[in-house]
Amino acid sequence: MNTRNRPGRHTGAQSGASRSPYGLGTAAGLLQARPRPAALAPQGLASDPGVALNPACSTDAGRPCRHPLTNAVENQRLLAHELAVKGSFDAIVPVLKRIAGLQHEVDFTERAQAIAREDLGFELPAQILADAWVAGLDMRTLYGECVMRTLRLMAKQAQLSNPQQDTDEAVAFFLDSGYHAVDISPCSDGRLKGLVRYILRLPDGAVRSKKSYAGAMFDVDANVKRWIETELMRYREGRPVTADAGTRYLKVAVYHWSSSEPTHEGCAAHGSNVTAAAEAGLNRLIEFRRAIENSFCCGASVDTLLIGVDTDTDAIKLHVPDAAGETNLYRFIDNIELYRASVNDDASSARLKVYRAIQAASATTGWGAGNGEPHEGMRRLIASLLINNLSQIEYVCGNWGGRYPDIGHAERFISVGDGFEEFQLRNLVYFAHLHTVEEGAPDMDVGIKIFSNLNVRHGLPVPVAIHFRYDSRVPGCRERTVERCRRVRAAIETRYGELSRPGLLVCAMTVQDKRPGSSIESVEESGASAARGEP
Amino acid sequence: MNTRNRPGRHTGAQSGASRSPYGLGTAAGLLQARPRPAALAPQGLASDPGVALNPACSTDAGRPCRHPLTNAVENQRLLAHELAVKGSFDAIVPVLKRIAGLQHEVDFTERAQAIAREDLGFELPAQILADAWVAGLDMRTLYGECVMRTLRLMAKQAQLSNPQQDTDEAVAFFLDSGYHAVDISPCSDGRLKGLVRYILRLPDGAVRSKKSYAGAMFDVDANVKRWIETELMRYREGRPVTADAGTRYLKVAVYHWSSSEPTHEGCAAHGSNVTAAAEAGLNRLIEFRRAIENSFCCGASVDTLLIGVDTDTDAIKLHVPDAAGETNLYRFIDNIELYRASVNDDASSARLKVYRAIQAASATTGWGAGNGEPHEGMRRLIASLLINNLSQIEYVCGNWGGRYPDIGHAERFISVGDGFEEFQLRNLVYFAHLHTVEEGAPDMDVGIKIFSNLNVRHGLPVPVAIHFRYDSRVPGCRERTVERCRRVRAAIETRYGELSRPGLLVCAMTVQDKRPGSSIESVEESGASAARGEP
Repeated sequence: MNTRNRPGRHTGAQSGASRSPYGLGTAAGLLQARPRPAALAPQGLASDPGVALNPACSTDAGRPCRHPLTNAVENQRLLAHELAVKGSFDAIVPVLKRIAGLQHEVDFTERAQAIAREDLGFELPAQILADAWVAGLDMRTLYGECVMRTLRLMAKQAQLSNPQQDTDEAVAFFLDSGYHAVDISPCSDGRLKGLVRYILRLPDGAVRSKKSYAGAMFDVDANVKRWIETELMRYREGRPVTADAGTRYLKVAVYHWSSSEPTHEGCAAHGSNVTAAAEAGLNRLIEFRRAIENSFCCGASVDTLLIGVDTDTDAIKLHVPDAAGETNLYRFIDNIELYRASVNDDASSARLKVYRAIQAASATTGWGAGNGEPHEGMRRLIASLLINNLSQIEYVCGNWGGRYPDIGHAERFISVGDGFEEFQLRNLVYFAHLHTVEEGAPDMDVGIKIFSNLNVRHGLPVPVAIHFRYDSRVPGCRERTVERCRRVRAAIETRYGELSRPGLLVCAMTVQDKRPGSSIESVEESGASAARGEP
Repeated sequence: MNTRNRPGRHTGAQSGASRSPYGLGTAAGLLQARPRPAALAPQGLASDPGVALNPACSTDAGRPCRHPLTNAVENQRLLAHELAVKGSFDAIVPVLKRIAGLQHEVDFTERAQAIAREDLGFELPAQILADAWVAGLDMRTLYGECVMRTLRLMAKQAQLSNPQQDTDEAVAFFLDSGYHAVDISPCSDGRLKGLVRYILRLPDGAVRSKKSYAGAMFDVDANVKRWIETELMRYREGRPVTADAGTRYLKVAVYHWSSSEPTHEGCAAHGSNVTAAAEAGLNRLIEFRRAIENSFCCGASVDTLLIGVDTDTDAIKLHVPDAAGETNLYRFIDNIELYRASVNDDASSARLKVYRAIQAASATTGWGAGNGEPHEGMRRLIASLLINNLSQIEYVCGNWGGRYPDIGHAERFISVGDGFEEFQLRNLVYFAHLHTVEEGAPDMDVGIKIFSNLNVRHGLPVPVAIHFRYDSRVPGCRERTVERCRRVRAAIETRYGELSRPGLLVCAMTVQDKRPGSSIESVEESGASAARGEP
């Protein structure tokens, strides 16, 4: 893929909040990051809106951040990935603008295809170009097609450049802390989409499930079913370890807020109220744990963990459970403070500070008081998560001056269904995990609302990628999954008919085998896509 | 409940197909059984449409049937139950007709309530009666309310008169044949609703799941999940027996046809084509078995069994699996033939004929050829099912001359969701098992089509009882289940808006704890029902 023509490329140097290293804000004003009003700047920092101080490194401004426990090589690798993927999506609008200006030229089709091949990496649907002379280029359909083709192209590249790692390593990571399964439910918000790979830096495949729900309001009953499946594997097949190995099941809920615009850019499902978001997540965790304890005998239980993410800085707030596994909204470690406190230390002092922070949190008095320290495995896991997140704080610090330029929504498409493993990037995709629109409507509504703002008011359609995974070992499962794609598509087009009828909502359907590394297969709609020359 | 005023009560004697022993056909022509056209009479029988011969006892006409292996006491008990429940529903239309004639009398409300109390067993919604002077009685709403109140009254009586039997007996029944779990998927068709209690005579609670789907097209993926839950109970909690007890999981699919009107009154989902219905059921069984075998290691598998039911006579056609567990559409036992062949024998000769029939079926050659006899447990189970069904053949034989008067649809309401354990009666209810209308629409559509014919064309609404069960051990599950009721109701009212808007579709919502014997709880719709004076 060629990126020559894209403005605002990454300079490698630390940049202020007002600068965009990977072209964000260049796409026709569409995905532009809103400037942060001075009145909402975090307390204790200079309030000049143009050059907000770096929230992580404010104690030692001017010098590039370098924490002894961070992984600089991985940060470079992740940055390259983020720039490549987002750059590809952000190239679409400028390319379409250029092509729009050529549509009355004699050799329009040839020139348009040459530009698309060069700048987007694929050809445009020939029929749409050929029909342009009649009533002008059908820009909405063209835009939708470009988003979906970019998506498939990026997914293919992600699979090639980042092949599935050995799952042994992934399993070992959690088994080291005594967990045979880890199930994370973040909010659907696109700014959390980099949670596993970027914010928590967990190995691919380590987390068995990361189904998103608006406001992290995960489905307790569906989670009980998933717990049952995990248990049976341990008992029946000894996977990943046998049932008598003394390991545990961990359920994590992740809420979020925006430190610079706390009342506007927090969790939409909880009205940007961070306390409400945290409380709701905690309640679901408690309900899930009780459901397991009440429904199964022989001491069945699960460990739970509540994590908050500041979507401006990607720093986590980790709620440390007590010895009884109970979590408290007022007993936590704020990792950005830990970063600041240890950035100038050597590695072993910094590591010691991480463990001391866990001890200090466990010793919280007053509202945050608990019943002693968590068990050893949980302590080890918490320490790993905190240390992993230090790298991400530095990633944001080094590349964006400690705070993303796009603190608000800037997602490129809505992902519906099972979601793509291939796209774990902040603000790339709003993900609504659902099996039916009837049940998932609240999550979908939030996504449509976000994109009404991002796309529709600029005349561009909402791109919806419907994606479900099937089990090729189960006869007929692929056919039923394709049927589900079509059913969900029909339900979306019915529910949002006012967008869909004038072409302001475009759906694409794909399915994928559950086995790791399987390719993404387009679902044809009555053979029409084939005629349009799918890549 | 008072039944004095109901015409056409059961006479106890054998009656011809044109006579209705429990009032069927008396309710304003609404639920009238269609007369069977002579041209469609089964081959080999006299074709006088008025007095069709008894298909079971035609060899020995005139003498009341008495097979040595049938349970006459149970037949009497089941008849009383059927007459009481159906009689209550069938009383509604005559009562409303009488009340309609009184609406301009001075003491209308008092007289109407007296009639309702006496003949229906409950009072009518006072507000509807009080408002009658304005624009006449709102008969559609009144009818809907009466159906739902009758439903709740009957459910309560069923629980009192037929308290949950000791589940030990139920479990022992199948464990005797080596099965720790039996899961039956019949067609949604109301004529199969008596399958477990009447047609197969299985003890209450013996069958863990009897979720109906149009055309018996059960959900393979959902069934795999249910299998997983069953397995975990065996491995983790040793219920009902431990995993090393050598027992099996049995999945049964049940299709149906009408022997007297095979091309019109068969399975609607398969266009009344019995071969298509049987083949489709068999394919689902094969898919389910393969899904288990492919997804789990260590020799995981299930036994499967395909059963057909002639909904005119309730006689079963049992497809005998071979030694490898494979089923064949052409290898079966027709139980009505077995009844005829053994009705004049003594008990031990009759029992011997049952086992010989299994041997003979296993020895089928040609298209029906298989690979030897099924294993001993399956043989024992098949024999039990055949013998149980002999009682039901005699039940139809003794009470309706061997063939129901209502060979077509005559359901009283549509049951949506998890269904009522309390109503296991032929042609009482069309049951669409679903969690969302989005997925369950095909099943719902068939039900609505049936009731458009039965009710709407006579100006009466379609009564839809939305019923879901919740797990009181899981926190928040009841609230989520109530929410599901409301969501499904809204989806039904949207999908069938043309019926719903003019009041030709009435929904009632109820929930019930999963524990056996739990009461049915009405779901209030914004407090309106309470104001109407719910019973």
